[in-house]
Amino acid sequence: MDTKVTSNNTDVISKLRVNGDRLWQSLMELAEIGATAKGGVCRLALTDLDKQGRDLVTRWATEAGMSVTIDKIGNGFMRRAGRNNSLAPIMTGSHIDTQPTGGKFDGNYGVLAGIEVVRTLNDHNIETEAPIEVAFWTNEEGSRFVPVMMGSGVFAKAFTLEHAYAAKDNDNKSVKQELERIGYIGPEEPGDHPIGHYFETHIEQGPVLEDNDKTIGVVTGVLGIRWYDCTVTGMEAHAGPTPMALRKDALQVATRVMQEVVACAHRHPPHGRGTVGMVNVHPNSRNVIPGEVKFSIDLRNASDADCEAMDADIRAVAARVSEETGLPIKIDLVSSYPAQPFNADCIEAVRRGAETLGYSHMDAVSGAGTMRSTWLASRLPG
Amino acid sequence: MDTKVTSNNTDVISKLRVNGDRLWQSLMELAEIGATAKGGVCRLALTDLDKQGRDLVTRWATEAGMSVTIDKIGNGFMRRAGRNNSLAPIMTGSHIDTQPTGGKFDGNYGVLAGIEVVRTLNDHNIETEAPIEVAFWTNEEGSRFVPVMMGSGVFAKAFTLEHAYAAKDNDNKSVKQELERIGYIGPEEPGDHPIGHYFETHIEQGPVLEDNDKTIGVVTGVLGIRWYDCTVTGMEAHAGPTPMALRKDALQVATRVMQEVVACAHRHPPHGRGTVGMVNVHPNSRNVIPGEVKFSIDLRNASDADCEAMDADIRAVAARVSEETGLPIKIDLVSSYPAQPFNADCIEAVRRGAETLGYSHMDAVSGAGTMRSTWLASRLPG
Repeated sequence: MDTKVTSNNTDVISKLRVNGDRLWQSLMELAEIGATAKGGVCRLALTDLDKQGRDLVTRWATEAGMSVTIDKIGNGFMRRAGRNNSLAPIMTGSHIDTQPTGGKFDGNYGVLAGIEVVRTLNDHNIETEAPIEVAFWTNEEGSRFVPVMMGSGVFAKAFTLEHAYAAKDNDNKSVKQELERIGYIGPEEPGDHPIGHYFETHIEQGPVLEDNDKTIGVVTGVLGIRWYDCTVTGMEAHAGPTPMALRKDALQVATRVMQEVVACAHRHPPHGRGTVGMVNVHPNSRNVIPGEVKFSIDLRNASDADCEAMDADIRAVAARVSEETGLPIKIDLVSSYPAQPFNADCIEAVRRGAETLGYSHMDAVSGAGTMRSTWLASRLPG
Repeated sequence: MDTKVTSNNTDVISKLRVNGDRLWQSLMELAEIGATAKGGVCRLALTDLDKQGRDLVTRWATEAGMSVTIDKIGNGFMRRAGRNNSLAPIMTGSHIDTQPTGGKFDGNYGVLAGIEVVRTLNDHNIETEAPIEVAFWTNEEGSRFVPVMMGSGVFAKAFTLEHAYAAKDNDNKSVKQELERIGYIGPEEPGDHPIGHYFETHIEQGPVLEDNDKTIGVVTGVLGIRWYDCTVTGMEAHAGPTPMALRKDALQVATRVMQEVVACAHRHPPHGRGTVGMVNVHPNSRNVIPGEVKFSIDLRNASDADCEAMDADIRAVAARVSEETGLPIKIDLVSSYPAQPFNADCIEAVRRGAETLGYSHMDAVSGAGTMRSTWLASRLPG
């Protein structure tokens, strides 16, 4: 076509629709690679199936006129040129590796939605000011190789390329070896790649949108996380001969604290979350009063200040319970992930997009431990 | 001696004292067989060490003028004749096998205290009306062979001799094979042995006497026991993306019931006991809201009526919690041991003995699962 339409024209933009059927077809075609009997997908990072998936996605990108750059950890950047190619690209993307019992949409949707946007821009002959890139990040699920979110982590220098290369799967095959084998070690130094703004479309992993009957969640940030190990020490004793008044039952004290973890979340609304997911009782015998109970505490909230308030809250409660019962309660912080508020302009762009196109929407926070967004945010301007 | 003293003479009896030093010496000598570095004893049933222990104890009995009968499961009955040997013997005893990390006194004290009584009667030339017997029961600890309390169980026909004979240890050696090897299969049919009354002296396995600063516990019976498995079913979900209001957290509901198990015991004083000893959380992962929690409940009380009242109490509480939370709570009774009140005359004899001899004492219930007393009670008159 000879007439280029610029993306500054809001009238044109507001009438644009992606081709939903085409996006669906692509999702279904990609989902055939590693399809499971139950309708899901098992396409673990750096397997033959992952190579097939990468090959298909990059072929689609090439067919849509995009250039493909691979970096040394196998992250792919599929680029559609803009009018001013000295600008950092507007990037979207996700991952195409899956969990062993993964679904068709987790990750894959974020990548293919990006390609569909490019296809739609092509259909309407629209030129954007900045280039657009669609990324796929390597081994983001982390089910074959640890650490999880490896590609974005190396990109953001959360850990080194060497550290990632050395990771081995259960068959003692290393990331480097497998990347080489499937032909996905590229020339670019991870991180040597400008990003203007980064958006990621993702299927919701929680029940909030469905519960609120909304189509679009406008994610305003990622919850901060505090992980603790809590240990209550009592006195192991026989359940029969030991009267109630003489017991030091570690589990009875621990369960009071477990109740308080949830109460603490309710005391810090609307985003406070408190979970005890793991409990280990010693000696875990039917007729023995537990002498020691260890359990995990997972606290989350939308800002670091809120996380700190929950930290102080649960520690104060534990101190009070310990004083009342006479049993020591130890709370150790084992991991801490900062809350990550997203860029206000980007949030507004997503919200406006949903409104313009007439999709029901609501603000949402991402409660998952999406280090990818935190890491990428550290690489972005503003 | 030519003058026999009869045991009907209370003046004589009230002045009688066992020889504490001699009893202590015997305890220490027996404890050398299988002595452990930490001061305990490891003398598992039907081992060479058990044979040495049995040989020593029966030698002491013979030296004290007693006759020894062994039955087919290896129970030993060491008999001092009375004036009227057609009367059923007054029996005492316990076991001399130990746990792998057993102590010097558990079981052994009950047997050697019986022998010391006989030695003391001999010293004072006292003839009792009925014969006296001191028993040692085979494999009462059950740490090498299952079932526990095997000798008294076969004696009381709680299970068959064949069942006990077939039990095997970890090295695939059977009870019968090991009994034959150490030479302790006797001619008597288990159970073909009259018992008039049965007393058992036992070191306390709980903290009550020490806490009350008393020397003698006058045991009035054995607590009834109810064992349950409780299952709370929720909905497994990610700790991050799932807001508090949309959760079905099985652990939060389970911990409420666990708190109530102890509260239930306090609602049924003075003998009510409630213990949660075992907890299994699924999937037991730090950042996953538990979808299912299984835990044990151990309820005990002094009468079957009290046990039934606790049963109804905890089931009502669980039903209320289930209704309030919407999560199913299943409570399955897995084992039930009836309460065993002891014979009133026997209890009074023990109490009077302690009073006569000036020992501090208190009534006590046995909270341990002493099936031996229940089984033997079923064989006794009255």
